[in-house]
Amino acid sequence: MLDLAIIGGGPAGLTAGLYATRGGLENVVMYEKGMPGGAITLSSEVENYPGITETVSGMELMEKWPEQCMRFGLRHEMAEVSRVSRPEGLCFKIQLSNGSVESAKSVIVCTGSTPRRAGFKGEKEFLGRGVSTCATCDGFFYRDKEVAVIGGGDTALEEALYLAKICSRVYLIHRRDEFRAAPSTVKRIKESDKIELILNAVPEEVYGDAMGVSGLKVKRKDTGEVIDLPVPGVFVFVGFDVNNEVLRQEDGTFLCDLNEHGEVIVDLAMKTSESGLFAAGDIRIMSPKQVVCAAGDGANAAIGAIAYVEHLHREKLC
Amino acid sequence: MLDLAIIGGGPAGLTAGLYATRGGLENVVMYEKGMPGGAITLSSEVENYPGITETVSGMELMEKWPEQCMRFGLRHEMAEVSRVSRPEGLCFKIQLSNGSVESAKSVIVCTGSTPRRAGFKGEKEFLGRGVSTCATCDGFFYRDKEVAVIGGGDTALEEALYLAKICSRVYLIHRRDEFRAAPSTVKRIKESDKIELILNAVPEEVYGDAMGVSGLKVKRKDTGEVIDLPVPGVFVFVGFDVNNEVLRQEDGTFLCDLNEHGEVIVDLAMKTSESGLFAAGDIRIMSPKQVVCAAGDGANAAIGAIAYVEHLHREKLC
Repeated sequence: MLDLAIIGGGPAGLTAGLYATRGGLENVVMYEKGMPGGAITLSSEVENYPGITETVSGMELMEKWPEQCMRFGLRHEMAEVSRVSRPEGLCFKIQLSNGSVESAKSVIVCTGSTPRRAGFKGEKEFLGRGVSTCATCDGFFYRDKEVAVIGGGDTALEEALYLAKICSRVYLIHRRDEFRAAPSTVKRIKESDKIELILNAVPEEVYGDAMGVSGLKVKRKDTGEVIDLPVPGVFVFVGFDVNNEVLRQEDGTFLCDLNEHGEVIVDLAMKTSESGLFAAGDIRIMSPKQVVCAAGDGANAAIGAIAYVEHLHREKLC
Repeated sequence: MLDLAIIGGGPAGLTAGLYATRGGLENVVMYEKGMPGGAITLSSEVENYPGITETVSGMELMEKWPEQCMRFGLRHEMAEVSRVSRPEGLCFKIQLSNGSVESAKSVIVCTGSTPRRAGFKGEKEFLGRGVSTCATCDGFFYRDKEVAVIGGGDTALEEALYLAKICSRVYLIHRRDEFRAAPSTVKRIKESDKIELILNAVPEEVYGDAMGVSGLKVKRKDTGEVIDLPVPGVFVFVGFDVNNEVLRQEDGTFLCDLNEHGEVIVDLAMKTSESGLFAAGDIRIMSPKQVVCAAGDGANAAIGAIAYVEHLHREKLC
């Protein structure tokens, strides 16, 4: 019986493990099938994690976290969780893809979310080296330079406005000739003298060399014309897949309340609608999708899990 | 006219400044009359800030933050803010204690909260060196050792329960013979075999040497008997003063909604009830009072401030 099962090994999961074990929880396991570190390990440059003053790669940033976070007893199990459920009573059931099952008094789910790919040539190859899915993270690296943004929803437009304050020009490429975003956001986009719209167009290929991206080819859907944009940065905002599959039950419902995007609804204490179940990091509603925010969430959730398990112990409920 | 005024220079304020300037805001000033760093600089040992693997003092932890957070244009003004108001229209008015006044389009308030002192001999002298106001931060340093907890409210009792999972014994010293805390919490305290109640008693003196605390003298109010507890750690939980004075208006009301403890009410985006005004760190409701959480708040609030200011620009409202 685990005091706490942590699902996911990014900044949120690692920090949750650090706080939970240092706070006296026993038998705390972090399930992460790969190496811990999370999505940030795909980034080539990080300079906004407070306290790490050098510009480092995401891999370098996360390098020392596992040792620090595991020195108070956190165990890392390299296994994939297929489902978290609560079949009877108050204990959670953790089912692994390898068939084994574990019980836990509390659970923190921090499996993150995965940016969708637009699906053009070079997109995957240059991800983290000129192709980005986060303006807050990477916009500054293109200060006073030209960038391309791909997408037409609220996020794409808001990120384009963010980039317009930093970059010299933002090409906004959208496959339709109308935006699905809020009218007020569309208005601001159209009024910006830094944003150039390329509508009815799809990205064909991002190209570059070992140093990174040097341009993007975009095809107009009506004429077939190919435009060559010599941009060093391409931002793709075509949606996120929230990694909430572990919360899906046999009957198709979810273990706790999600919003319309599939993100886990939490309060300021990272509590979900299910007592003893917490969410932290990019999987939760309104996540800023930043390492320091995910880590803060993890600490916050762990403090809640400690109090919850302490309460269970006294009440002998689990 | 500032794009953003940040009130307070702890982890929340510094991180807000880093994110705001790196995100393209101009004229961003952090008001902090002393050295930046915040309350954590009073701690002698920190080992739970993710990514900083060595055990460092709070001062060492925060040492490099100002340079990193200011390299994108954040300015630190060593001045005390006396009041933030919004006298007319949409711009904020920042009044300084030295009499000068500045205008700002958005404000992040992160002035924190200050633990109250119980008022016994040696309390101030040993703060951060054996006297602590945070079980999550310092409990682990007393693993399998005996500690004393001073206080009788909800926080004191919850922190005593937290410490009981880590320490070999917790002496809970309360000046009354009844607790003001929730009945369920009191029940758990009374059932714990690790917590020893010393009621109707007040701390008289904490003593020790250059290495830290070696004991606490406690006086029984009824008999006058002095008990000598040879504990290396003393946790004081007699309340917090929320540093919300900058939000108090001339007529005594506050610029935004506070809860009954005086903490600023925020949502998951760190928005207050006043548009363009954000709160981050220990001043807000449900703050876990951890460096990594405050820093996450600061990043979160800055992202909100960037969007707010961008919106103002377009609408030409301020």
